[in-house]
Amino acid sequence: MRQKVSDERPSLMRYEIREIVDVVQKIQELDKDFKVDNENIGDPVAKGWPVPPFLKDLLIEAIKQEGDKVFGYSHSRGWPPARKWVVKYAKKFSPSSNLDYEYVLFTSGLGAAISAIYEMLSHGLRIIQPTPSYPTHASMESFNANEESVSYELDPDNKWEPNLADLEEKIKNNPKIVGILVINPNNPTGAVHSKETLEKIVQLAEKYNLFIVSDEVYFRMVYNGYKFTHITELAHNRVPLMVMRGVSKDVPWPGGRCGWIEFHNIHLDEDFKKYCDAVKKRILLEVCSTSLPQMVLEKLYDHPDFEKWIAQYNKHLEDNSKNISRILGQSPYLNVNPTNGAFYMMPLFKDNVLNDRQTLPIKNPEAKKFIENLVSKPGLPLDKRFVYYLLASTGICVVPATSFFSKHYGFRLTTLERDPKKRDEIYSRVEKAIDEYIASTNV
Amino acid sequence: MRQKVSDERPSLMRYEIREIVDVVQKIQELDKDFKVDNENIGDPVAKGWPVPPFLKDLLIEAIKQEGDKVFGYSHSRGWPPARKWVVKYAKKFSPSSNLDYEYVLFTSGLGAAISAIYEMLSHGLRIIQPTPSYPTHASMESFNANEESVSYELDPDNKWEPNLADLEEKIKNNPKIVGILVINPNNPTGAVHSKETLEKIVQLAEKYNLFIVSDEVYFRMVYNGYKFTHITELAHNRVPLMVMRGVSKDVPWPGGRCGWIEFHNIHLDEDFKKYCDAVKKRILLEVCSTSLPQMVLEKLYDHPDFEKWIAQYNKHLEDNSKNISRILGQSPYLNVNPTNGAFYMMPLFKDNVLNDRQTLPIKNPEAKKFIENLVSKPGLPLDKRFVYYLLASTGICVVPATSFFSKHYGFRLTTLERDPKKRDEIYSRVEKAIDEYIASTNV
Repeated sequence: MRQKVSDERPSLMRYEIREIVDVVQKIQELDKDFKVDNENIGDPVAKGWPVPPFLKDLLIEAIKQEGDKVFGYSHSRGWPPARKWVVKYAKKFSPSSNLDYEYVLFTSGLGAAISAIYEMLSHGLRIIQPTPSYPTHASMESFNANEESVSYELDPDNKWEPNLADLEEKIKNNPKIVGILVINPNNPTGAVHSKETLEKIVQLAEKYNLFIVSDEVYFRMVYNGYKFTHITELAHNRVPLMVMRGVSKDVPWPGGRCGWIEFHNIHLDEDFKKYCDAVKKRILLEVCSTSLPQMVLEKLYDHPDFEKWIAQYNKHLEDNSKNISRILGQSPYLNVNPTNGAFYMMPLFKDNVLNDRQTLPIKNPEAKKFIENLVSKPGLPLDKRFVYYLLASTGICVVPATSFFSKHYGFRLTTLERDPKKRDEIYSRVEKAIDEYIASTNV
Repeated sequence: MRQKVSDERPSLMRYEIREIVDVVQKIQELDKDFKVDNENIGDPVAKGWPVPPFLKDLLIEAIKQEGDKVFGYSHSRGWPPARKWVVKYAKKFSPSSNLDYEYVLFTSGLGAAISAIYEMLSHGLRIIQPTPSYPTHASMESFNANEESVSYELDPDNKWEPNLADLEEKIKNNPKIVGILVINPNNPTGAVHSKETLEKIVQLAEKYNLFIVSDEVYFRMVYNGYKFTHITELAHNRVPLMVMRGVSKDVPWPGGRCGWIEFHNIHLDEDFKKYCDAVKKRILLEVCSTSLPQMVLEKLYDHPDFEKWIAQYNKHLEDNSKNISRILGQSPYLNVNPTNGAFYMMPLFKDNVLNDRQTLPIKNPEAKKFIENLVSKPGLPLDKRFVYYLLASTGICVVPATSFFSKHYGFRLTTLERDPKKRDEIYSRVEKAIDEYIASTNV
């Protein structure tokens, strides 16, 4: 090329939840008998969750419908009846909401929404991220700022609640921070934040004149007696707010790519409104987001079987959460927080239990060589080393905590396994493998 | 906000094909009886094209299939069998292709692909655009460069073929240009570029060490005896090339959001390869693109009825193209190029026929006031003024040529009308309205 067309910015983009899939693929190429237990991706379908029959019926009905509108483009901000339904749905949970359907924006999955909000923020300004972070948020934020992400701590010693002192300190010391990202229920920790915490975050936003981004894609997945607090209610008429929601996880349909942004309290700040309009314009340029899911949305959520489905789903997630944390909690090397929402858990290694000499046996010699080569990379985080060995040795695929920008070593797993026996078997193997891994340098 | 979160960059984003929809919506609010003929959006579904029954059957079969995989995430670069099918499909038309399925990248519609390629290009470098331009390309390019787009002319006096002298001149004088965008068949002009032209573009890319982006989303829609030349064949082993294709238009399914990028000849340049990898990584961050279309792709294109469908589709487009250009060609005020591909046409006004005093009668007084206010904006292009009057007066919605960054006044229409009688009636009305509009200042 007559000028260098590539540059170093992609190094700020990290999404190791998917990068580990390439490691799996490579091992499978080397070892035809290699079987994987995918505990790495939050895809209920891949974990055998059946799609509820009423969703299939709705889709087939929509496809057969005369006029074929589910095949056509929808409005660039989203099909108007779907946007009007979002307003109704928002009000159901947050009665004070005065959300305008022209400030509801559908996107092809929340990934597209996330890219757009960081891309349209005036250059160099920052939205502070919770850490452990969700990589799409943290990477898109840091890619657009062209600097490492700025973050506040979720505290593993306090049920992964945000460390509010840390958050305020960071806001005070970095005038470039203009927004706070809240992911609640949280991915990757499975935490559900308390009303008190959220109220304090709203107060901080008020005090420092910031906006809030609330990623609530898991808000219907709350259990263990926990209750989801709607930050929309708390922030009402106080703080400009973007709420992100989507269909992907409420029924197993992540491949449908249907998410939306709600822009709340835009009347409070003309500049924030202009920024929201820029996000709308950015999405407009991609013409429209996937039509089919938008057009069954209302019928899906208002279906008489939907609430039953969600209740059964949450019951199962609660069981999994309890049992996985019970099993892994037996390990003397781990600190385990049970989850109360979403379907992720992040056990952490206790201090100083990991080193760069620990290993697990890998049967296939080619796979062994491949992993040994991978872990020999200088600077490889110790939990990533563990995750590679666990994968190649047992077939169990989880994601290192450091891949979520965590300062603690650990790993993220999904609580989606359908079969209780298999679930217990997998996590008993993980617990045993940790013992073996840590003992390996004493042999 | 404690710092200004919005900025001026969105002014570089223009997509008036959709912005005019807001004007329509506004008029409909003011005048309940207002009926629109949408000749502005390339959506076959909206124009009454039936979705072929075999596509519906394939979708219903896929949805009913055990395992529910069409509901799940697909691989972040696309479902591997779909990527392998793309390789096969590329080779069918371009036998010399050595496309690797790891360098096929699915996106949720080509809009997402277009955003990604400009976003990942090293900052400040340029991909030169054909003009009249397709706004998503031109806007994303200029947004990411943070400057107005750079462009080469399509020549209306030479069947909208690229002006190669202009292209070379621009490349020579602007060392920041590293790539050439070719849209073939062309949106918005309906041109199909000749083999000779494309060979010369490949030679220019070789001479100046540039890459080529070939947007071929309409490559199956070619008629009037024209033949589509595969630039992949010409560029083979000579020039790094990105090809963009998708399902949206081959069957009426723009709402499915299924497009893909093929990265060809990456072995020629390490830097280009790194840039392609950055585009892949950017898409990875959004997790995956819509699963369902990927999973029916092969069965759709290999269906025994598909080629019959495309043939019938092209026959109809050819008829429309001939008849619309015949009718509008009667106007003494227009220069009309018949189209040979895609489903757009861009008649141009002859020099000096438009002025800022011409009008058409608008029945509804509120709508009249609204349009008069719109056209009173200083600097409004004269063809946009015409388009607003045409819309409010006749209900016929087209898009001004200047909305495609054209230096000539004119308008883009779609050649998708199903009913030949209605088609002739609509364009006879357009022709008459032009007479009346131009005569209005002589009254």
